[in-house]
Amino acid sequence: MPRPASVLLLVLLTLGTACTVVEAPPAAAGARPRVQITTPETFDARNVPAYTGAHEAAYAYIDANLRAHIEHLRRWVRQPSISAQNNGIREMAAMLRDDLKALGFQEAELVPTSGHPGVWGYYDAGAERTLAVYMMYDVQPVEPTGWSVNPFDGALVDRPLGRVLMARGATNQKAPERAFLNALEAIIRTEGKLPVNLMIVAEGEEELGSPNFPQVIDRYEARLKTASGVFFPFNSQAPSGDVSMFMGVKGILSFELEARGGPHGGPTRAEIHGSYKVITDAPALRLVQAIASLTTPDGNTILVPRYYDAIRPPSDEEQQLTNGMLPQWIAQDSATRAGLGVERWIGGVAPREALLEYLFSTTMNVDGMWSGYTGPGMKTILPHVATAKLDSRLVPDQDPDTALALIRAHLDAKGFTDVTLTKLSGYPPAQSSVSAPLVQAAIGTYHKYGFPPSVAPRLAGSAPYYVFTRRLGLPMVAGGIGHGSGAHAPDEYMVIEPKPGSRVAGLARVEKFYVDMLHALAK
Amino acid sequence: MPRPASVLLLVLLTLGTACTVVEAPPAAAGARPRVQITTPETFDARNVPAYTGAHEAAYAYIDANLRAHIEHLRRWVRQPSISAQNNGIREMAAMLRDDLKALGFQEAELVPTSGHPGVWGYYDAGAERTLAVYMMYDVQPVEPTGWSVNPFDGALVDRPLGRVLMARGATNQKAPERAFLNALEAIIRTEGKLPVNLMIVAEGEEELGSPNFPQVIDRYEARLKTASGVFFPFNSQAPSGDVSMFMGVKGILSFELEARGGPHGGPTRAEIHGSYKVITDAPALRLVQAIASLTTPDGNTILVPRYYDAIRPPSDEEQQLTNGMLPQWIAQDSATRAGLGVERWIGGVAPREALLEYLFSTTMNVDGMWSGYTGPGMKTILPHVATAKLDSRLVPDQDPDTALALIRAHLDAKGFTDVTLTKLSGYPPAQSSVSAPLVQAAIGTYHKYGFPPSVAPRLAGSAPYYVFTRRLGLPMVAGGIGHGSGAHAPDEYMVIEPKPGSRVAGLARVEKFYVDMLHALAK
Repeated sequence: MPRPASVLLLVLLTLGTACTVVEAPPAAAGARPRVQITTPETFDARNVPAYTGAHEAAYAYIDANLRAHIEHLRRWVRQPSISAQNNGIREMAAMLRDDLKALGFQEAELVPTSGHPGVWGYYDAGAERTLAVYMMYDVQPVEPTGWSVNPFDGALVDRPLGRVLMARGATNQKAPERAFLNALEAIIRTEGKLPVNLMIVAEGEEELGSPNFPQVIDRYEARLKTASGVFFPFNSQAPSGDVSMFMGVKGILSFELEARGGPHGGPTRAEIHGSYKVITDAPALRLVQAIASLTTPDGNTILVPRYYDAIRPPSDEEQQLTNGMLPQWIAQDSATRAGLGVERWIGGVAPREALLEYLFSTTMNVDGMWSGYTGPGMKTILPHVATAKLDSRLVPDQDPDTALALIRAHLDAKGFTDVTLTKLSGYPPAQSSVSAPLVQAAIGTYHKYGFPPSVAPRLAGSAPYYVFTRRLGLPMVAGGIGHGSGAHAPDEYMVIEPKPGSRVAGLARVEKFYVDMLHALAK
Repeated sequence: MPRPASVLLLVLLTLGTACTVVEAPPAAAGARPRVQITTPETFDARNVPAYTGAHEAAYAYIDANLRAHIEHLRRWVRQPSISAQNNGIREMAAMLRDDLKALGFQEAELVPTSGHPGVWGYYDAGAERTLAVYMMYDVQPVEPTGWSVNPFDGALVDRPLGRVLMARGATNQKAPERAFLNALEAIIRTEGKLPVNLMIVAEGEEELGSPNFPQVIDRYEARLKTASGVFFPFNSQAPSGDVSMFMGVKGILSFELEARGGPHGGPTRAEIHGSYKVITDAPALRLVQAIASLTTPDGNTILVPRYYDAIRPPSDEEQQLTNGMLPQWIAQDSATRAGLGVERWIGGVAPREALLEYLFSTTMNVDGMWSGYTGPGMKTILPHVATAKLDSRLVPDQDPDTALALIRAHLDAKGFTDVTLTKLSGYPPAQSSVSAPLVQAAIGTYHKYGFPPSVAPRLAGSAPYYVFTRRLGLPMVAGGIGHGSGAHAPDEYMVIEPKPGSRVAGLARVEKFYVDMLHALAK
């Protein structure tokens, strides 16, 4: 799940009192479009009735089997599954498949794709409603420094928030997913079967941008369309205990730019002596110039013609959700910046303006770049190749292939025909509505647990949920109580046993929430 | 020696017939200054009388001891001395010192500096004239791939040119230097003493830009000023056998540019999730923009105000030398480009224009740059730091500290106060005159061996010879017959035993040349 954990720290309880109206002039050439909020209405999750069911046998089962349930989480994070490095992928896919079989899924199988395999599981409860569950079983590469434990040990360590599982995948996304399976186990063992039919669709390439996930969907498309929605088990609590939900995610376009010597000039085979720069074109300088041409000198406004054109204004529902989350966003602004180590937002804007940008704006970002000699001391060479990885977060109604074509056209128009542009991955944004039954069931369950959620119109992060929202026409919810942090970073963790007095749910309550939510949806 | 070996392939026998007059308008704003050649005169080395002496005892000694002399070269290249990695530096300095002692130098000592030590040696021959000899005992780092032998084995392998010594330092610069010491040994053992007094000044940081070499000079400045000139043992033959000399070298300014998060914005502590780009400044984009601001979009004209102002027009002597080398430069143009893997020079200019740029123009070059994630696959992060190493080759009368200040002022004026500029090293260019006794002795000796040299006004490469030419006021010659290539590259070599019929000198002739040149200078 490519969402920064600290988003959840920001997207907090809706107070229902804010009203934001920003009047702004239309975007000038070379300026970012300004987001306008025109509705005074505010969404308030407390208006959704709390779920009232109680499933005591399943709760008791969870309490009695908590040690074994924790071990299931540890077993999952001990299995590396780094998609970018093809490390442990097959083993993790098999582990997921075998766990579904053990739970009694009638179908549980690997799904071949052009890349890492998907996993499919079907549990036929003979129920009226069907829930699709999305899972990702891959994780990010491990940072070479910064970890205080072995990231694949499944360490249980005491931290200020309580006892936590600290490992790669502890919150993003394996531990919450296995907690969800623990909840299924509790229902099946105590009630005989699940209250809804379940379709599990999992992929092993989420951290690569889900290039082949559509192939997994291809095989089950007609069946998936019969579901009421798609659920993604997710630690939604901030350290304070507050819960946030999001109704959408941004899309993404990831690409490489590369400059090499060729018929246009520059060294073609290998680096050459730096003194030849005087009569030889430099690929590294060409790459730098090409990247620089994409933005204003501050790096913050995209200069690719028509790049902003596809962005639609926020819908009425999105505006209401924005109004609802604004007070807490503002209250948390300095804590958010402190957590990130960012002293000021772009342009030093106020928190309200930052939130509108955060939710509704696109980006151009350099993830990495390299050329030539990067070791100690000096080596005066003229490198023959220079490469950069970039990404652009896409908001409705931007499309990755259109964005890619606009960038290529811009580079060509600026004379950078010698700079190659290679798409690494891309998918459009996704959006669900708060009015969907799945969303209402989730909000009602949060309410029962004392956490009427803050509901964000979307995350700034990206996920391939367009396959559900656009292709299958289903609402998509990432939800659950519980807290973790450190996705894509060292010392990733999930709280297992919170300190006394904490509002954060421990693993047992996390699993009970999933039990309730499935029943809430079944009603 | 930071010269590309293939220069020697280009700077060939003067034919004495060329006359180049280029009339060009003065440089416009944002344009490189155009070099103008206004003299029709051409320098011809054949007008310098050939050296006529013969030193048969020394020649016979060399022939009789060639196996041992080759082993001396192998012993030197087997000892790593990578200054950038502080690998073997102390051991190599001691080896040089001990070899001087063994030859009978009355003074032979390490010279402490702020960095790697220098080496000083003095041989008092009781002679009228004194020759200073510059040496560098350090080498470039070894490329991780591309070597067909272990670069520190001292391998003797058969190649199309004959039997060669293939190793790091085989031509740049340890093997020619040790060949020179072999020649001293031959004279001393057969004639009892050298015909000139010798002062050896060596450094172990040439490949780092000679940051502390002035400290070595400090200690012996008054004594060095009594020399007739400074000699640098050097493989001056092209594969064809043709010999080239150069009367100067460019200076250099090496620096790092770095962008980091700070009070101006951006992540300060570590990379953050890439989705935050939407409200967070990106150091990588700032670095890219700062580098891009230094040049035109093609990367070839420097936009730093007044950067070109200090460049003086070519002197009359430099113009005559340029006229002399032009015909062979033109004849070799396509071979030069093929050797480098460069399909066209900047702007697709003709060889004549390329030569004028090559000799008389400054540069702005990216040696390396790096930021963020550079591994396989994708990692969508916002890096907190981005770094680049750049260098600028300086021609008369550019000065590195002035150039540095101009770049800083430019960055500040463009708003890049958040981008740090750190000088790595710098020294001004150096120039000698063909009329100096040392130069005349060298040319006369080349003439005796059948190689009246092509004499270039300067190399496009850099070396710290300003300490000799500007500070000590001495002419500086890098010379000697013999051929090697691959400086700063894999499979660096020097020919030890050429194929029959080759005009390239083998090691014995290389050493005999040094014997003669010392006697020629003594006269």
